Amino acid sequence: MMREIKTMSTMYWQDNRLYLLDQRYLPSKTEYRSCESCDQIVDSIKVMSVRGAPAIGIAAAYGMAVAAREALIKGCNKVEMLTALEEAAVKLKRARPTAVNLFWAVQRMEKLLLKLKETSPQQIFESLLKEAKNLHKEDIDNNRMIGLNGAELVPSKASVLTHCNAGALATGGYGTALGVVRAAVEQGKDVHVFVDETRPLLQGARITAFELFEDDISVTLVTDSSAGHLMSRNKVDLIVVGADRIAANGDTANKIGTYTLAVLAAYHKIPFYVAAPVSTIDISVETGEGIIIEERCGSEVTHLNGHSIAPEGITASNPAFDITTAKLITAIITERGVVCKPDRVKLEKLI
Amino acid sequence: MMREIKTMSTMYWQDNRLYLLDQRYLPSKTEYRSCESCDQIVDSIKVMSVRGAPAIGIAAAYGMAVAAREALIKGCNKVEMLTALEEAAVKLKRARPTAVNLFWAVQRMEKLLLKLKETSPQQIFESLLKEAKNLHKEDIDNNRMIGLNGAELVPSKASVLTHCNAGALATGGYGTALGVVRAAVEQGKDVHVFVDETRPLLQGARITAFELFEDDISVTLVTDSSAGHLMSRNKVDLIVVGADRIAANGDTANKIGTYTLAVLAAYHKIPFYVAAPVSTIDISVETGEGIIIEERCGSEVTHLNGHSIAPEGITASNPAFDITTAKLITAIITERGVVCKPDRVKLEKLI
Repeated sequence: MMREIKTMSTMYWQDNRLYLLDQRYLPSKTEYRSCESCDQIVDSIKVMSVRGAPAIGIAAAYGMAVAAREALIKGCNKVEMLTALEEAAVKLKRARPTAVNLFWAVQRMEKLLLKLKETSPQQIFESLLKEAKNLHKEDIDNNRMIGLNGAELVPSKASVLTHCNAGALATGGYGTALGVVRAAVEQGKDVHVFVDETRPLLQGARITAFELFEDDISVTLVTDSSAGHLMSRNKVDLIVVGADRIAANGDTANKIGTYTLAVLAAYHKIPFYVAAPVSTIDISVETGEGIIIEERCGSEVTHLNGHSIAPEGITASNPAFDITTAKLITAIITERGVVCKPDRVKLEKLI
Repeated sequence: MMREIKTMSTMYWQDNRLYLLDQRYLPSKTEYRSCESCDQIVDSIKVMSVRGAPAIGIAAAYGMAVAAREALIKGCNKVEMLTALEEAAVKLKRARPTAVNLFWAVQRMEKLLLKLKETSPQQIFESLLKEAKNLHKEDIDNNRMIGLNGAELVPSKASVLTHCNAGALATGGYGTALGVVRAAVEQGKDVHVFVDETRPLLQGARITAFELFEDDISVTLVTDSSAGHLMSRNKVDLIVVGADRIAANGDTANKIGTYTLAVLAAYHKIPFYVAAPVSTIDISVETGEGIIIEERCGSEVTHLNGHSIAPEGITASNPAFDITTAKLITAIITERGVVCKPDRVKLEKLI
């Protein structure tokens, strides 16, 4: 039985502005934030209205187009526009530090800009917008390929554990880790998904569970600390997660808690897969030690929906990511193929 | 520098009734529930107003005294009272399935009852109450000894990770895992504690962080899934947790997430200690496989403070405990001494 799966858009361009799904309020509210300024997009990335490494890359690419349009409206000449775009690029890259896709996407727009120096402001805007749309479409195509490549690793009946959200809403569409799940389901495989809720911001509970539930894929929500118990009871056949940055040696930064799952997977001899587009590989960083881990505000841990869930005045540590060492990763699934036991040589060949 | 540490009472007997701190509302409300009927105590255990293996044992012991007093007030004769007490014992034992202290405490009261068959209803009540008070006091004394025995394992400067609450409020007072921390601090050791928030009911954030903060012990709150990251960065010197039931071979049931910490500790070569009174050892159960794991309502995962944090209709799995295999436990710290590399022979010798 073949099934085709559709999900809502992470973002779309309409009426000369970017509409971003405000994921902070999912699943209770499905609200798009209309962004007419680059600063709004920077803010959306910072506060995590839009999140997920590929999605923030795409949003940043659109951010460059939005910045060009702002300059057009202000009646900037070409020099003024290029200065504004330089500033926009800096702001966008500074929005969050860990996911490399943000830098990658903005750099791609900057490279294009170098070729546009002889064109008019209007043409610059149009070209940047076209490039952002291309990047968006390519991301979805890549995810479809990641899905197909990864689905081969999923048994015909499988119980999959995932963490955070590496789904349609973390990307341009379809998803990376959830792309693998979706492709397997589309191929008629019998897949059940355990979803870690993913504290503190509950992307697993709020977004992954929501995506799968909407797509009628069998899903059970669990607390993050239940994963070990599930594995000890042989309830997990494989683990698949996304990535925010992959170092040259295969060390992978992903949502806090990923490393714990990888250690548990190794202990239980369960395959541990990372699904990500090639743009997530940062060959300039030797190992995971070179990846900056974003430390977010402790109030994300001590408060939920504005209510305190811990003693007033308590100190909370809130690293947003952790580093999974390459030796714990069974394979990295990309749009260009599956890299088993990743290392520098194999990853260099891929990019 | 020696420090003496005091904390609020988990429960106390006054005016012929048991006052139980309703821990569901900590730390925002400090409210005692007045229990004049055994059913109220059963309910308090079920809904986790009172929680923590030793504490529910003590509450159940008082529950037998409360049941005797109910019978007295109703004007029951001795036969009627003994029947009522039999029923009370059954109800109390059925309140929660995993922590053995509940069964152990009620059985101790039943054993005493056998000796009281020739006495009057009033004397039965008084004897049961006296026994419950003894059991309560013994628990605190045991915890002080656990603390002293465990403190020897804590370096003079140490960063300790704990999970859930095995503190004063999980026991008659002082705590088991936190007893070890308190004793080390009282001996002038420089101890910092990382506290896992412990989803779904957040006993770490709400109760352990609160206890330590109130006692002016250095504490940082983290999400459960941060533990692996902390260990990978060498920020944890040792882990100490409580226990709900210890099988004859040393396998230990404790709050969900404990097993994950033990696997992480083994991977990082960090000592992993279980601190519990000897009454937690259930020699009748060969291994952890024989321990029933309570599955609680999924709404504890999908809802927080009455608000939904996941899609409506989603299935959530909510095992309250997991089993840490003995080989992952560096030592079990009891009031009778420290058992390194626990096994049946060593635990049988202890009890």
